[in-house]
Amino acid sequence: MKISFKNDYSEGCHPRILEALTKTNFDQQNGYGLDNYCQNATNIILQKTHSPKSKVHFVSGGTQANLVIISAFLRPHESVVSARTGHIFDNETGAIEATGHKINSVETVNGKLSPNRIQQVIDAHPIKPHQLKQRMVYISNSTEIGTIYFKKELQALSEFCKSNNLYLYMDGARLGQALSAENNDLSLEEIAKYTDAFYLGGTKNGALIGEAIVINNTKLQEDFEYHLKQKGAMLSKGRLLGIQFQELLKDDLYFELAKYANKQAMRIKRAFEEIGCDWWTETSTNQIFPILENEQIEGSTALNCDIV
Amino acid sequence: MKISFKNDYSEGCHPRILEALTKTNFDQQNGYGLDNYCQNATNIILQKTHSPKSKVHFVSGGTQANLVIISAFLRPHESVVSARTGHIFDNETGAIEATGHKINSVETVNGKLSPNRIQQVIDAHPIKPHQLKQRMVYISNSTEIGTIYFKKELQALSEFCKSNNLYLYMDGARLGQALSAENNDLSLEEIAKYTDAFYLGGTKNGALIGEAIVINNTKLQEDFEYHLKQKGAMLSKGRLLGIQFQELLKDDLYFELAKYANKQAMRIKRAFEEIGCDWWTETSTNQIFPILENEQIEGSTALNCDIV
Amino acid sequence: MKISFKNDYSEGCHPRILEALTKTNFDQQNGYGLDNYCQNATNIILQKTHSPKSKVHFVSGGTQANLVIISAFLRPHESVVSARTGHIFDNETGAIEATGHKINSVETVNGKLSPNRIQQVIDAHPIKPHQLKQRMVYISNSTEIGTIYFKKELQALSEFCKSNNLYLYMDGARLGQALSAENNDLSLEEIAKYTDAFYLGGTKNGALIGEAIVINNTKLQEDFEYHLKQKGAMLSKGRLLGIQFQELLKDDLYFELAKYANKQAMRIKRAFEEIGCDWWTETSTNQIFPILENEQIEGSTALNCDIV
Amino acid sequence: MKISFKNDYSEGCHPRILEALTKTNFDQQNGYGLDNYCQNATNIILQKTHSPKSKVHFVSGGTQANLVIISAFLRPHESVVSARTGHIFDNETGAIEATGHKINSVETVNGKLSPNRIQQVIDAHPIKPHQLKQRMVYISNSTEIGTIYFKKELQALSEFCKSNNLYLYMDGARLGQALSAENNDLSLEEIAKYTDAFYLGGTKNGALIGEAIVINNTKLQEDFEYHLKQKGAMLSKGRLLGIQFQELLKDDLYFELAKYANKQAMRIKRAFEEIGCDWWTETSTNQIFPILENEQIEGSTALNCDIV
Repeated sequence: MKISFKNDYSEGCHPRILEALTKTNFDQQNGYGLDNYCQNATNIILQKTHSPKSKVHFVSGGTQANLVIISAFLRPHESVVSARTGHIFDNETGAIEATGHKINSVETVNGKLSPNRIQQVIDAHPIKPHQLKQRMVYISNSTEIGTIYFKKELQALSEFCKSNNLYLYMDGARLGQALSAENNDLSLEEIAKYTDAFYLGGTKNGALIGEAIVINNTKLQEDFEYHLKQKGAMLSKGRLLGIQFQELLKDDLYFELAKYANKQAMRIKRAFEEIGCDWWTETSTNQIFPILENEQIEGSTALNCDIV
Repeated sequence: MKISFKNDYSEGCHPRILEALTKTNFDQQNGYGLDNYCQNATNIILQKTHSPKSKVHFVSGGTQANLVIISAFLRPHESVVSARTGHIFDNETGAIEATGHKINSVETVNGKLSPNRIQQVIDAHPIKPHQLKQRMVYISNSTEIGTIYFKKELQALSEFCKSNNLYLYMDGARLGQALSAENNDLSLEEIAKYTDAFYLGGTKNGALIGEAIVINNTKLQEDFEYHLKQKGAMLSKGRLLGIQFQELLKDDLYFELAKYANKQAMRIKRAFEEIGCDWWTETSTNQIFPILENEQIEGSTALNCDIV
Repeated sequence: MKISFKNDYSEGCHPRILEALTKTNFDQQNGYGLDNYCQNATNIILQKTHSPKSKVHFVSGGTQANLVIISAFLRPHESVVSARTGHIFDNETGAIEATGHKINSVETVNGKLSPNRIQQVIDAHPIKPHQLKQRMVYISNSTEIGTIYFKKELQALSEFCKSNNLYLYMDGARLGQALSAENNDLSLEEIAKYTDAFYLGGTKNGALIGEAIVINNTKLQEDFEYHLKQKGAMLSKGRLLGIQFQELLKDDLYFELAKYANKQAMRIKRAFEEIGCDWWTETSTNQIFPILENEQIEGSTALNCDIV
Repeated sequence: MKISFKNDYSEGCHPRILEALTKTNFDQQNGYGLDNYCQNATNIILQKTHSPKSKVHFVSGGTQANLVIISAFLRPHESVVSARTGHIFDNETGAIEATGHKINSVETVNGKLSPNRIQQVIDAHPIKPHQLKQRMVYISNSTEIGTIYFKKELQALSEFCKSNNLYLYMDGARLGQALSAENNDLSLEEIAKYTDAFYLGGTKNGALIGEAIVINNTKLQEDFEYHLKQKGAMLSKGRLLGIQFQELLKDDLYFELAKYANKQAMRIKRAFEEIGCDWWTETSTNQIFPILENEQIEGSTALNCDIV
């Protein structure tokens, strides 16, 4: 039996998701996210984040979450700051710019933003009104290169953003994996406390499809449903998303899956280390970036088969 | 047992969809619509449309299909003509305008556009370049008020559009129901022949989620994947859509379901007729619009229970 | 000597404008509207409007004024209500939609909006969030068909807008002519009081180029310069606009010119009436719309020559 | 007498412009750029560029020229490559992104792009369709830091662009100064030959206002007027722009002014050199960037007065 380690979205979903979909299949519900399952999943998220005033919305993918959130929060003359490795900057086909907003990118060492880096961006844009107003900071946790944010870092970012009139938004396509990493010291509660908004990724952690947007800043919550509908992000059968998040979160299956993904990645990592591999970035989540010789890559089929 | 007839998306999906998802669940596949299931579903669609040069793309909803298609096909100074009852004009929260394009709306009797109506729109915009260039015609089949297009009508629209340099695009959120109506005389093959693009709705005809975009005009096919990605319409696990359309289309389950939906709607229709109801529009598909007295509406709970 | 009455922008400008430009030509000033002339013109406008908290910005044309204002004031899911004859709806090549916003149009008798008409638009969009949120009302004074708003009408609109959370914006491409019409009962001060923003047209009233945007609602003033720059509406040599408005407004040349334009239009109007002409709309400003037989139009060259 | 050397747009215009405006003032003309003066100016430009098939359009400013051109030429999924110092990237408040397009920026030594640099951008975006398609190259001549392009460089860029399916667009806000630099070896004819489009800046070279867009690629010419109108760039009294360009170009006043500006800048440059100044960039046009000690800057008022 061959297993591909190419990515974490090459299979369907955790079997319990299919069971839940089957069990609820003939239950009649309201459309557009107004069903009981979305409501239940929302309640579970608000409990886990200890953030009863937050609002939760379910969408089908990460690019969609990013573009709806950023275009809903910013006015036309406001920009968003991102690491150059940020998903919105380099892997979403200009989705953010297509909504009219520039991304101010900045080089980082490990895919993570810091107050210093953001300050550099602000300092480089002093000519008002001939340059955009930075109004938002985009971070990913885990990052696009597998690293994670620590509590002190997120706290510092949050304070910096508050004192600089910047919203802090966390892309959580792999937030489960970040929070389940061995060296993680952040909780979901802290993430809800320190960010204005974030999303909890489902697609890359056991769901068939779906991301849960959580808006913590109450000023940014109003009318968000309009933006979802306008950008084609509101599903008629929103229940599909609600059922999955209810199932994943009701007893922490979500975090078990992430922990398992990380653990297996670490097994692969050790196998690479045993053959003396170097690494592009030091990661503790399920994305690993070994540096291989071309000949090693050519032999990688055999390698794939060894580790199950 | 109570059954709600509010709409055709209040339940999950046909059980065979869940079986197919379960059966294929652990099969590893490429992401982003490059999986075998999307390919199989595409092949079936191309066979059914007898249109081997068409391109097929799967997306998660109708508003998304509409906004990606219209913004991909039009240049900034071009507009799209729609019936005033058209879904894009009145029920998508300005999704099309949000991509920069105006919709020129026109009143219709039965939700259907005709060459005459479109000519009226063109005639009302003679002041170039101070008025937009009409470049596309949007029709829905079945329409938002339950009516369907007949062969002669579609043929006439197609000819008119070709000779007026207009793309013809059909929103097929309920195309299955249209093609399965008792009085329908159109085939999928003819729709592929007469339109530049259309989509085949899944969400409202047995799928959990999903619409299949079919682009027939080869000049409009290039680079369409970029637009999908940019608008957040490209799913990482595109297989979810491919598996469903494969299952729905491989042995005409899609049309059986639509026929059944229409048949049950006609049962309800007859029940209304027996109590002497008038109709807002005369429909042969699964959307019916009886005109009721307020007191009849108040008693509608009982009514719901009768017809199972 | 032949004179064309085609429009009010076929000649250059009032000679005093050229004199003022010549006199100030070598005076060195800051760019981008930060020159003394723009400041002086601003001061005069604030005095005339008795609205010291208003902010004034000068731009080169009406479409530009409209698109910067509307896109700066509205969020993505908000729409603007306009008469179907409104300039933004029918004569600006989709400029507003190109910034992402839908215009909800409504039929009117005389090109003027009323609370009733706006209420109709609101009533026709009850399905939230599947329909846009109306957030702004666009009116023109004088209107595109030559009519003007009276004090009671503007007052009623203003009250209606305030109680319905709508901004009221007046396109004043020909505001001079409106305020100088014989039957006008509105003052500049009242316009500043009743609207959230308006613009004072220069191009069609004696200037070479230029419109003066006046933002009265202090909440809408912040960061407006960014929007001007982003939309290409901020001139390097903003002085060109400031000098003209200073000259036009310092001793009411602006209103003299408008009064003269109206008076001459009324002369032409009487000439038409003498030959028994009917009218499309009854106007008291310098736009008149006689209904002519085709043969009369063919003979119109002769007609042009008679009236000087 | 004090003279400020802050920039080249702090005064009005060359006196001959005012004379020409005065002389033509009462001549009645069509609006929207359809006047005889725009036609005459166009003819002169086509003669000077030896490019009879090019199309010419006049607009009021550089940001406007850039945003209309780029949004008219590109489809939604296409991006434009610019030097990081490019005006569109850093000094136009996100004007290009506001039309939906990303700018791919690249570091340069002297503000100039080369095939190598552009190739680097292309190479950094291999993941189709998750990254944008580069489709246009934006260069400025003279650049934002005062340098100019030489014939071999432009030729190489042109060849590279053609073979990589990229449009080459030159921002000519100070094209007069570039072509009048002592070390320039490019002609207007060659610029028309090597670029798909460029603009000839007026505002910073003797005009009150105005830039002349020249579109050389015939495939990009169609419908350009619509884009001008849609973006608020079409002046009712387009004559204002035509008259100025006619006056500036009919006997090369345009180039005399640029030569004079360069010459005076070189005088200032020598004065700096005499006091032992270093330079940020080596320029031959009217933008110079001496590196001064803070104390020297504080004494700069005196410095200003010396050089007249």
